[in-house]
Amino acid sequence: MYGYEDKTYNEVLTQAVNNIEEINQAVDAICEKGYKNLYLVGTGGTYAMASPLSYLIKTNSTIPWYYEIAAELVTAKPKQLTKDSVVITASLSGTTVETINAAKYAKEVGATVIALVGEKECPLAEYADYVFENRTASNDNLVEEIYIQYFALGARFMKNNGEFPEYEKFIDALKQMPEVLQKVREDNDERALAFAEKHKDTKFHMCVGAGNTWGETYCFAMCVLEEMQWIATKSIHAAEFFHGTVEMTEKDMSFMLFKGEDETRPLLDRVEKFVRNYSDVVQVWDTKDYELKGVDPSVRGLVSPLVMAAQLERVSAHFEHVRNHSLEIRRYYRTVEY
Amino acid sequence: MYGYEDKTYNEVLTQAVNNIEEINQAVDAICEKGYKNLYLVGTGGTYAMASPLSYLIKTNSTIPWYYEIAAELVTAKPKQLTKDSVVITASLSGTTVETINAAKYAKEVGATVIALVGEKECPLAEYADYVFENRTASNDNLVEEIYIQYFALGARFMKNNGEFPEYEKFIDALKQMPEVLQKVREDNDERALAFAEKHKDTKFHMCVGAGNTWGETYCFAMCVLEEMQWIATKSIHAAEFFHGTVEMTEKDMSFMLFKGEDETRPLLDRVEKFVRNYSDVVQVWDTKDYELKGVDPSVRGLVSPLVMAAQLERVSAHFEHVRNHSLEIRRYYRTVEY
Repeated sequence: MYGYEDKTYNEVLTQAVNNIEEINQAVDAICEKGYKNLYLVGTGGTYAMASPLSYLIKTNSTIPWYYEIAAELVTAKPKQLTKDSVVITASLSGTTVETINAAKYAKEVGATVIALVGEKECPLAEYADYVFENRTASNDNLVEEIYIQYFALGARFMKNNGEFPEYEKFIDALKQMPEVLQKVREDNDERALAFAEKHKDTKFHMCVGAGNTWGETYCFAMCVLEEMQWIATKSIHAAEFFHGTVEMTEKDMSFMLFKGEDETRPLLDRVEKFVRNYSDVVQVWDTKDYELKGVDPSVRGLVSPLVMAAQLERVSAHFEHVRNHSLEIRRYYRTVEY
Repeated sequence: MYGYEDKTYNEVLTQAVNNIEEINQAVDAICEKGYKNLYLVGTGGTYAMASPLSYLIKTNSTIPWYYEIAAELVTAKPKQLTKDSVVITASLSGTTVETINAAKYAKEVGATVIALVGEKECPLAEYADYVFENRTASNDNLVEEIYIQYFALGARFMKNNGEFPEYEKFIDALKQMPEVLQKVREDNDERALAFAEKHKDTKFHMCVGAGNTWGETYCFAMCVLEEMQWIATKSIHAAEFFHGTVEMTEKDMSFMLFKGEDETRPLLDRVEKFVRNYSDVVQVWDTKDYELKGVDPSVRGLVSPLVMAAQLERVSAHFEHVRNHSLEIRRYYRTVEY
């Protein structure tokens, strides 16, 4: 498959899975000590990736949680972020300034900081109490490996809180991800190529998602289409679509729907039904299209963000060569001063 | 001023101010009884309007709070929403299906529901324990009157929680709003007209905001430009702008910056500095441009969402006649079945 090394992919995901034991020890120690709330904090891609974790906790737990953009957190200084808070964040490079500042601020107020990084010797790690390293991933912005670790963290906090009876099945499912997601990428390769070719010159995509795939919707629009391909987008939550953005619908407007398998699926069904009536350019990226061998049916919906990320990676990859636009080029980010 | 009746505006805002006493009684009763957390819930415009309230609570209080889109709340069923929750929501028509369903669901779990409506005899009111009515507003989607009441609610909860020492000054400031905002509209009328004329044919606006004016950013993009004028937009948080969307910057891209006066102002300053370098089409809507007579300087930043809404209303109004596109026309919403 284009732009893809299955060996590396497997290694990165396997390392994420291998970190689960260490993650459990860290969470158990934190729970033993006690804490008051969880802060899920990120910047850009890592902000988006914390979205499914916030959804997981929201729908399965009574642990108080807050979901914040790193740079806003540092200026706004939320009153609930105290020495009794646990901050969960990530930066593969470990050098994202906003995320480092957020971790630094959290340490100043005495919070416990958990960070996922590529290499432990990085600025972010200096401000973290618990650091989980995935060296293989350090040169590869792999959403899936972050999800595995974020989910393992959240699941353990919930289990220790006497909640989330799906815990064992969910962790088992995460352990299947290296093989399962490899298959997802393979299965979507051809369709993704066809999509990239069809949309080689499309100037604008309307991206719609909900629930635990909202983060992927926001992220694919901003971090792939805008950042890596310089294609304009709007990302809109399916629960909000009919309250404004719907009026933009045109026969030739490209709709990308990010459909997962959680409770919010009917919200996407409703949008799909509508846009299929009023647009000729609708693509549904549906996690239901994949077998997910070894994943217990009862937790399929919980891993939708991983499945979504894996199938979308094929779209990014094919856009790169079909549009002759490297995913690595930036005009501004880390290129000019601001 | 075009499309504007100052007498009605004053009446609507004054009614909102007059509701504060009744709001206080309701909140006092709820606090007396006890509650565990606040749920700020809305749909489209009312979802956007709850954003500044969530920011107010986040930055001034230790009351647990959650901010949810009505339709997602009903499907996701957050575990923290229980009989000990207080749900705050609004619908001027009182007929927004998603908001009604959210209130209904909240009642089913036994939560206390507070609703702001145009007229008490509406479907939403049936599922509310406390209803605040503003009949004058029922035919006029006035953001400002919702803000006044949302803020009065939030402020009272915080005061009763032994927090928010700015309470008296803040309520005083809200009481000045009928006159203050009238002046804001007047002061911005000419500039808004010039903007509308300049952007008569602009096809896309990039809207950037943060903190307590993020809701207005999201709302103006979706509920005015997209819904009422069918102009494409992207709304992006200033703390996220540099992590993807920045790459879309072009010399001829229209940037609308929504700058308030809270702690997050430096995030907007940073975006402004950047876009002024790389785009020739930058408009900053800055709440600092207005005098706000009678508002104590220490609480100016807290009323930025109101000032922002008042100045932007002039932009909507002028777009209507300059573009010969009524703010009332809908192609789909409440026009076709879906």
